[in-house]
Amino acid sequence: MDSNQRPKLVRFELLHEDARTGARRGRLHTPSGIVETPAFMPVGSAGSVKAIGPDDLQKTGAQIVLGNTYHLMLRPGSPVVQQLGGLHRFMGWSGPILTDSGGFQVFSLAQKRAISEEGAEFQSHLDGSRHLLTPERSIEIQEELGADIIMAFDECPPGLSERAYLEASLARTTRWLERCVMRCSRRSSLFGIVQGGPYPDLRKRHIEEICAVDLPGYALGGYSVGEEPQAMHEGVAYTAPLMPKQKPRYLMGVGTPLDLTTCIAAGIDMFDCVLPTRCARNGLLFTSEGKVVIKNAAYARDDRPVDPSCGCYACRNFSRAYLRHLFVSREILAMRLNSLHNLSFFLGLMEQARQAIERDQYAEFAAPFRASAQTQAE
Amino acid sequence: MDSNQRPKLVRFELLHEDARTGARRGRLHTPSGIVETPAFMPVGSAGSVKAIGPDDLQKTGAQIVLGNTYHLMLRPGSPVVQQLGGLHRFMGWSGPILTDSGGFQVFSLAQKRAISEEGAEFQSHLDGSRHLLTPERSIEIQEELGADIIMAFDECPPGLSERAYLEASLARTTRWLERCVMRCSRRSSLFGIVQGGPYPDLRKRHIEEICAVDLPGYALGGYSVGEEPQAMHEGVAYTAPLMPKQKPRYLMGVGTPLDLTTCIAAGIDMFDCVLPTRCARNGLLFTSEGKVVIKNAAYARDDRPVDPSCGCYACRNFSRAYLRHLFVSREILAMRLNSLHNLSFFLGLMEQARQAIERDQYAEFAAPFRASAQTQAE
Repeated sequence: MDSNQRPKLVRFELLHEDARTGARRGRLHTPSGIVETPAFMPVGSAGSVKAIGPDDLQKTGAQIVLGNTYHLMLRPGSPVVQQLGGLHRFMGWSGPILTDSGGFQVFSLAQKRAISEEGAEFQSHLDGSRHLLTPERSIEIQEELGADIIMAFDECPPGLSERAYLEASLARTTRWLERCVMRCSRRSSLFGIVQGGPYPDLRKRHIEEICAVDLPGYALGGYSVGEEPQAMHEGVAYTAPLMPKQKPRYLMGVGTPLDLTTCIAAGIDMFDCVLPTRCARNGLLFTSEGKVVIKNAAYARDDRPVDPSCGCYACRNFSRAYLRHLFVSREILAMRLNSLHNLSFFLGLMEQARQAIERDQYAEFAAPFRASAQTQAE
Repeated sequence: MDSNQRPKLVRFELLHEDARTGARRGRLHTPSGIVETPAFMPVGSAGSVKAIGPDDLQKTGAQIVLGNTYHLMLRPGSPVVQQLGGLHRFMGWSGPILTDSGGFQVFSLAQKRAISEEGAEFQSHLDGSRHLLTPERSIEIQEELGADIIMAFDECPPGLSERAYLEASLARTTRWLERCVMRCSRRSSLFGIVQGGPYPDLRKRHIEEICAVDLPGYALGGYSVGEEPQAMHEGVAYTAPLMPKQKPRYLMGVGTPLDLTTCIAAGIDMFDCVLPTRCARNGLLFTSEGKVVIKNAAYARDDRPVDPSCGCYACRNFSRAYLRHLFVSREILAMRLNSLHNLSFFLGLMEQARQAIERDQYAEFAAPFRASAQTQAE
């Protein structure tokens, strides 16, 4: 598509709703292309989906990639990325990119931090240098990076925060959203973030506050931060339907195949998570037949592919025995092949979910994941 | 080619000799395909050219890969590789493979070792386990791995060995070759190895002994083991022309672009070396304009490709600034892209050398490498 013809707006089309669950089939239009939803976004924190080049990434079926403001502001710095033509060109990925706001990482990665009305002051986990991240600064950095979708700067309070702290934090996150909107040169790229911890009433109130601001999409933050999966599933089942129907609903930092299939049924359209790539680097592979711990001796002479029903490069060309050998020998190629496979599995899962929704058979598609999880829990 | 039609023999065709140097243009026929010479063989010690999949490897222009008997016998073990269909299938590389005999690694990698007429007893560098490698055992392992070309088991004596020790060692390596030949089920795949350290007369005598055994190719071992490049170049310039003209001449474990271009002029047809991949992992990139230490701050905002005249995936898609960012951020992708580039550079060099020989302009092609080395030395 000629760049002049590209839509400058981020716009969501709700294509179909599953007849018996809350699952939705949609299409997210972005300046860099279309994302079919439900969608899973591989995480490329520092401008690289770990161990995977953009050529491999495309083959996994990825349609959109997430970049981390926190990582990129510290190294190489957003002015460098901007000078080099923006994050798309820098990392060689011409498809859609979403950047988070840095808020979550300030709380999960940074050393000493102090929150004030102004923003979050923190020390870099890389070199201890001091930084101030404010709503304005986060937007500025994200616009320098040049992502298609940028996220509002929020506080992600600890899961066990007292209710009083949480209420104050939510109100501040709402005020921060207004500051983000003011600073944003292209409001059509900004997603708001809903917090509220485990309290349904706080979640409901915060959804009302955040979604009162007209934006092209909204996210649920503060889930999958240590609570039981069951609690998260119940929380999302309550909150997702409260969000605007005509806008994409993004559940941040989630999750396992069970999390994804369960939360899609609640009406979630977008996910991101490091799980497939991080597990890959630790030798844990997801397959249609369950998890494979590739270093296990049982695979030493196993000539079968990791997942016989997978069409990825790793499964088409190599045996479990070879992947085990690479992993135990600490060969770098193990990281690439494992990551390639796990991402293909997650993205294949989303493709299957989209097809199931189109056929109004989402419940049948999702049922085995729940059954399998129950079997494992028993 | 149908496997029944494949030549079962390893056979060398001398296509052309450069008019003014000893450089030769040849073609090595192997059961798994043709290798155009002069050829550089990337090293896949443990069944993987480090950080590079066979898909990438093919794109670099590699025609043949080297596997290490020492590494593969220790892990995963040659019976495992054989059971899984041989090394080609195990590592997903259908092109020609050469395996070394393990001799060199016993001396360079293994812990405690003892040489006797029988063979070399050593302890694994992985777990200290004891192993005996004999000429018979080395051939047995290499035949289980199923390489197209296998190497005779030799002793590679330390560079500073006394002459008396060296003479005894050479005589033993000759006896070991006879035992290799006896054990070999397909003599047409076996290359002999000439040793002799820095002594021209010993080299000459050993060439006569080793090349008296009719084999499809012969190698020079014991070079590039710590001596000055200049000494190695002079040694090879003396020994290479003494080797049979109608057989491929393989210089083991060499070398830098200067080493390659110099030794091709002496009449060497084949090389292997870890240099391009090892340097890549350390962030040292070879280019047509000289070496690039990619972590240097000078590249932090450098939008140019590593080598503007290189057509590899890394150079076509990424800036020096991005490669620097990946390297300093310790991203795994850095290892792949750097390795891909360095191998492309080395294999491109060989392609250029072959073309220069065909045009009888090898001297002109090689001259700048020597000039550049002299400039750096001054």
